[in-house]
Amino acid sequence: MTVMPNWLDKRAYLTPHKEAIVLNDGSKYTFKQLQHDAKSYAAYLKRQGFNKGDHIALLSSNCYEFAVVIHAFHYIGAVAFLLNTRLTAPELLFQLKDGKVKGLIYHSKYKEVANTLSEQAHLQLITMSAPREEEITDYETEIDLDEVSHILYTSGTTGNPKGVQLTYGNHYWNASSSALNLGLHQDDRWLLSLPMFHVGGLSILYRSVIYGMPVHLHEKFDVEAIHRDIMERGVTIVSVVTLMLEQLMDRLGQEQYPNTFRCMLLGGGPAPKTLVEQCQNRKVPVFQTYGMTETASQFCTLDEDHMLAKIGSSGKPLFPGQLKVVENEDECPANTVGEIVVKGPNVTRGYWKREQANREDFQNGWFKTGDLGYLDDDGFLYVVDRRKDLIISGGENVYPAEIESVLKGHNDIQDAGVVGIQDDRWGEVPITFIVKKDQSLMEEDVINYATQQLAKYKVPKQVYFIDELPRNASRKLQRHKLLEFIKGEK
Amino acid sequence: MTVMPNWLDKRAYLTPHKEAIVLNDGSKYTFKQLQHDAKSYAAYLKRQGFNKGDHIALLSSNCYEFAVVIHAFHYIGAVAFLLNTRLTAPELLFQLKDGKVKGLIYHSKYKEVANTLSEQAHLQLITMSAPREEEITDYETEIDLDEVSHILYTSGTTGNPKGVQLTYGNHYWNASSSALNLGLHQDDRWLLSLPMFHVGGLSILYRSVIYGMPVHLHEKFDVEAIHRDIMERGVTIVSVVTLMLEQLMDRLGQEQYPNTFRCMLLGGGPAPKTLVEQCQNRKVPVFQTYGMTETASQFCTLDEDHMLAKIGSSGKPLFPGQLKVVENEDECPANTVGEIVVKGPNVTRGYWKREQANREDFQNGWFKTGDLGYLDDDGFLYVVDRRKDLIISGGENVYPAEIESVLKGHNDIQDAGVVGIQDDRWGEVPITFIVKKDQSLMEEDVINYATQQLAKYKVPKQVYFIDELPRNASRKLQRHKLLEFIKGEK
Repeated sequence: MTVMPNWLDKRAYLTPHKEAIVLNDGSKYTFKQLQHDAKSYAAYLKRQGFNKGDHIALLSSNCYEFAVVIHAFHYIGAVAFLLNTRLTAPELLFQLKDGKVKGLIYHSKYKEVANTLSEQAHLQLITMSAPREEEITDYETEIDLDEVSHILYTSGTTGNPKGVQLTYGNHYWNASSSALNLGLHQDDRWLLSLPMFHVGGLSILYRSVIYGMPVHLHEKFDVEAIHRDIMERGVTIVSVVTLMLEQLMDRLGQEQYPNTFRCMLLGGGPAPKTLVEQCQNRKVPVFQTYGMTETASQFCTLDEDHMLAKIGSSGKPLFPGQLKVVENEDECPANTVGEIVVKGPNVTRGYWKREQANREDFQNGWFKTGDLGYLDDDGFLYVVDRRKDLIISGGENVYPAEIESVLKGHNDIQDAGVVGIQDDRWGEVPITFIVKKDQSLMEEDVINYATQQLAKYKVPKQVYFIDELPRNASRKLQRHKLLEFIKGEK
Repeated sequence: MTVMPNWLDKRAYLTPHKEAIVLNDGSKYTFKQLQHDAKSYAAYLKRQGFNKGDHIALLSSNCYEFAVVIHAFHYIGAVAFLLNTRLTAPELLFQLKDGKVKGLIYHSKYKEVANTLSEQAHLQLITMSAPREEEITDYETEIDLDEVSHILYTSGTTGNPKGVQLTYGNHYWNASSSALNLGLHQDDRWLLSLPMFHVGGLSILYRSVIYGMPVHLHEKFDVEAIHRDIMERGVTIVSVVTLMLEQLMDRLGQEQYPNTFRCMLLGGGPAPKTLVEQCQNRKVPVFQTYGMTETASQFCTLDEDHMLAKIGSSGKPLFPGQLKVVENEDECPANTVGEIVVKGPNVTRGYWKREQANREDFQNGWFKTGDLGYLDDDGFLYVVDRRKDLIISGGENVYPAEIESVLKGHNDIQDAGVVGIQDDRWGEVPITFIVKKDQSLMEEDVINYATQQLAKYKVPKQVYFIDELPRNASRKLQRHKLLEFIKGEK
């Protein structure tokens, strides 16, 4: 058991007047202010009847209050369920029920869906803009690294979404390992425009409080605002996905970032070679990463020195982490593709209430990612296939199995297969192949149905009707064969 | 249980060709070379019959091979006893026997004393300059942070020296906490001239392997060589005690260090105000620290921003650490002196085989340092009395109780009291007050006797004969009253 003081308390004690959060409109909050607001909100949660160990969900896009709520959770010792605002009510309901969530904090923008959810899942509703006066007095002064702080849902290759349990320790190890890898400068400022309900955005919040570093918090990716923050507001590190980086490079044009800008941390799939070269030409230091919810964000990072020499690689695992490429439990030789398995103090201890998945995916401390890749002669990782069939669309993970499962719920659909195709704007988008039960079924029926059930980025962009899906002897869908049906078309 | 890959293996994988160690003569060793040498030495230790869990002592001053041996210990999983080379044979014997040490690795400079120790404690002798050919193949590939890696002896306020058990975790947390506090730059180079057998020197070795940072390793403090390393060899951080800093400032004269020099980490007691001002005038950034063997080196650090505003303070505890000032278990209000107690993942789990001391000194994870101090209104720590009566002489800790216990072993001495007095060169030196049993006892008899039994820095510099020592009702020696006997003299 490793115990340390509450992080925000400690940070507000060490550097009370340092900026914690800077918003797009220029407003700033110090760690002392953030502490006050979080302790006041924690007092409010306590008055609402919430206590240590309670499961509470948060439905909000990025904003200052999001950070306040996250730290308030720590003061009362609640477990946070951060909801993806792009999901539909049925998708959210599944998580809330599966996670035995007791209360739902919502941003006023999401009042309508919050009401629906509250009714259907019998949740206590809590507004984010609660009255904040007195600070909490009786609270968790210490943090036990072994305790679960978050349950974040992720879809998998099979069945329903699973709740990834992340501990305080997972976050701490991620933050400290990242500092050992990227270094840590007195003047660092990290720009956060990724959704905070995903681990990639959330982890920046923890780096802020653990390092004592300002976060430039953006509600969403706005290329103008982010360009300005780098050029004029002293931002030194930005976390991006490929789509964002492309827009930033277009906006940069022939200009150059200030010398103090030192890291473009690139996640969510490999970047095209031309983009990396473009960055190199403009002296923009790109650090390609590999990580997932189960590793509390980045697990591997390719450093600037190898940005071009090892193009397409995600680098090496950060200091406390171990990574192997295996085939049938044996380690593969260099340059041979196998499944990527990882181990380390920032890896989740397992999924919430998913005993079978935990038995299958975790062995002797090693977590089987399901991703395929290889290590080259120098030990650099190349990911060749993210979680078999995973589609990454605009930085969001889309799992074919989840969409198929929803489509098969339609009365007139007998079978459904989903794959990703290349897309200029989103990187990839899902398309679907349908076997009809009722011949009157039309493309728009499928789209409409999917739109009701699934987040917009998961809705298939094209629908193909076929007679039978390609399945192997054991009836497993062979998704790679689906694409052959449309090859002739293109 | 937190597990990570062997540190040197991981580092040699991440940055094989980066400099690990730079010596005074300019020779350099990469992490890959250090790994090879350590693995070869580990193979040699294994051939000598040593295995996981064995207690092995090392008697050496600073040198490259010291680092090799330290890492070799980790490969075989041995527990290291690092011996202070300034101690006498009887002092060393005590540690070796108390620690159930099985083997002694010695530098050729200490061959004679090693032979004596080996005979008297039945130790297997191992030379540092062993043949190094093949690397070890069957070794500890992982490090469990909860395992003890070192037992380092420290004298206390009462009785015999005690072995402080330090785990891998204590070292890791110290290294990562220090990086969070001081930052971490790509071009950092840390100069190590403190003895590596003390935790202050040893901890720099761990920072090197964990950060991937070159250490400039000096056998001893040589003001010319250290000045040169800062001015010409790109050293950015130097660990010093007051005596060293004074000499460095004298040598600096009207020159200035390069802008890249960013930290003079000052341990071993508070610095005189004039010295800190001198540093400020010459733009030398001084970071005053407070720490001890039991906290695996620095626990608190005063940052550069408060160097003058909070002169005399040791700052605030590093991120994962907690500190309180207590009187009878109650927390003292601000500006009130009490005992300093600390808690955190870099604090020792306890002393080796000292159940009573462990019961007394450790409570609910808090360690009672025995030092007295107070926190000011802003929470900055001021240490007013290091471990009641502790004398700090040239950076070495000298405990009156230990010297008294030795002196009382003399046939002609009935009672003895020891206190420290100010000394221009060493900061403080011990002096003694003796109650004779036999009136023929002379000052030189006392000095000669002490010289045989005690390290030179512990030998009293003056001897006063008095009729009776001042003791309170419970017969406890009142050392502060001893100084009154000689007040008239000065």
